[in-house]
Amino acid sequence: MDFVQGVLAGDKLALARALTQVENGTPEGRSALSSLFAHTGKAHLVGITGASGTGKSSLVNQLARYYRNPDPGGSPCRVAVVAVDPTSPFTGGAILGDRIRMRDLAGDPGVFIRSMATRGSLGGIAATTAALAQVLDAAGFELILIETVGAGQSEVDIARLAHTTVVVEAPGFGDDIQAIKAGILEIADVIVVNKADLPGVENTERALRSSLDLAHPAPRRNLHHGRVELVHMSDDPAAESASIWAPPILRTVAIEGKGISELAKAIDSHRAHLHETGGWEQRERWRLQSELDLLLTDCLVAGFRSRLPSGIYEQALAGVLERRISPLQAVEQLMDRTG
Amino acid sequence: MDFVQGVLAGDKLALARALTQVENGTPEGRSALSSLFAHTGKAHLVGITGASGTGKSSLVNQLARYYRNPDPGGSPCRVAVVAVDPTSPFTGGAILGDRIRMRDLAGDPGVFIRSMATRGSLGGIAATTAALAQVLDAAGFELILIETVGAGQSEVDIARLAHTTVVVEAPGFGDDIQAIKAGILEIADVIVVNKADLPGVENTERALRSSLDLAHPAPRRNLHHGRVELVHMSDDPAAESASIWAPPILRTVAIEGKGISELAKAIDSHRAHLHETGGWEQRERWRLQSELDLLLTDCLVAGFRSRLPSGIYEQALAGVLERRISPLQAVEQLMDRTG
Repeated sequence: MDFVQGVLAGDKLALARALTQVENGTPEGRSALSSLFAHTGKAHLVGITGASGTGKSSLVNQLARYYRNPDPGGSPCRVAVVAVDPTSPFTGGAILGDRIRMRDLAGDPGVFIRSMATRGSLGGIAATTAALAQVLDAAGFELILIETVGAGQSEVDIARLAHTTVVVEAPGFGDDIQAIKAGILEIADVIVVNKADLPGVENTERALRSSLDLAHPAPRRNLHHGRVELVHMSDDPAAESASIWAPPILRTVAIEGKGISELAKAIDSHRAHLHETGGWEQRERWRLQSELDLLLTDCLVAGFRSRLPSGIYEQALAGVLERRISPLQAVEQLMDRTG
Repeated sequence: MDFVQGVLAGDKLALARALTQVENGTPEGRSALSSLFAHTGKAHLVGITGASGTGKSSLVNQLARYYRNPDPGGSPCRVAVVAVDPTSPFTGGAILGDRIRMRDLAGDPGVFIRSMATRGSLGGIAATTAALAQVLDAAGFELILIETVGAGQSEVDIARLAHTTVVVEAPGFGDDIQAIKAGILEIADVIVVNKADLPGVENTERALRSSLDLAHPAPRRNLHHGRVELVHMSDDPAAESASIWAPPILRTVAIEGKGISELAKAIDSHRAHLHETGGWEQRERWRLQSELDLLLTDCLVAGFRSRLPSGIYEQALAGVLERRISPLQAVEQLMDRTG
């Protein structure tokens, strides 16, 4: 229990230990998480998602620096970064220049950087990311940047756990198409065209704009149609219509620090918008329901797996492949064998 | 049980009834499906996926016509269409010209068209689509075209159930970006740029090609990383490397019947490739394992829901929102209440 006190007191060693226990899902980690949860709910969770090569790690780095030293009028805040990306410089797959800048950041006591290996099930990654963010929230970080590689359903799951989602794009090399994979635009609150000094930036921006125009209004509702919603909770249509937000498209050159303060202002505006329109409470509800449903699904699947005697699944699948039994009959057999 | 015999004997009324029972998940439907499953495994399942406005319904229509009257040297085959798209002309959301052509097709005894409402959970749609395809396979249709709107994870799930996936694109209006959503290119075996008489076709084709080049080889492996894989089955790397297939990009003008025979030839080549390389057996294995996992996950979730006393989930969620209990504690509470 002492690292719970340490986390709340701002002890970085205790924090690092707590994060490791939580990431590994140990009993200590689960217990710490339950104790810390009551102290969460203050941080602004911002997802930064985009394909490899869009420079989103540099962007995250610059954003963290900006929030530590904002433009006159802003007050510095404590920033944590959770990188969920095996190719991220935060996890060691970086170009040297980036790493030097990261190290620079790492010397600042108001910044904490944590990378996460993308292992386990996708649902598991999103649930683990949420848990790490909760520990950091309880530890008093006011802004939590969650960096993910935009590549599929896992990003949509992770985005469900953020208050604000920033989608990062870059011109050229077909990226203008690549990054729109996985319905990623539908979850964007802020869109960034990074590397905006490269040729093709106008094309990328135009393509993003026309894609956005094609997307339906109130896109967040779509997030509810995923498989993880175990029980349907009614929406409040009034709150929904009040909270319409048109995602801005911004240009940045992260490596030169260009456009960063504008991006930070867009992120802050989105937070203000959520607070003004009641959208914050709604997203909190969605976020936490998504997390609950992810954990429940994981728990159901894990329970099933643990009750399944070894080799039984393979036998059932073989029966289906040989068309001795139908898939439904296989499911019935497996359910019988696991109680 | 008599409609099972009817389906096997080629009786269309029995077939329509069986499909309705299966789609609605009635006990008769489940029982029919189990009886019919032993008679499946002969059809070539082809998924046709693309955004609304790409003209994929016209393409499906033309493909069905082509396979009924192939070029000299080919033999006609029986064709079934399963349309999983609320905006499809097959389900009534069409322009008049299309509907007339559909009706024309519907008079052919070698063609059967079935539309499916997209209701229920996403996993449920994919599982139901697989079940309908099985009934049609047992009924002796040699080619089953599954038409889906390319819009997210559901399409990836449905594509897992096909032997060959055709991704349909069209020039202009940002479609070149829109259609690449949901990692759809990663599941493409054949790519079609329809409406190839429109301006911008070269741009669309170039963008598709650069996206394809960015995609990693052996993309089918990625399909395995979805949440539904309950038990990991080992892959055979030799079979994997033997089955590399470079997806061709073809141009069509479906409304004028242009490029249809080339598309049919590409589909047939893909089937031949699968048979020659052992890829067919591998896809059968993946297809059926995906279906089994979808059904198992649905069954686990449905079982949980049915055991959950009314109001308990809402209570647990409220506890989390008020931060009285953590999400993990909520899961534990819910698990306790459902046994």
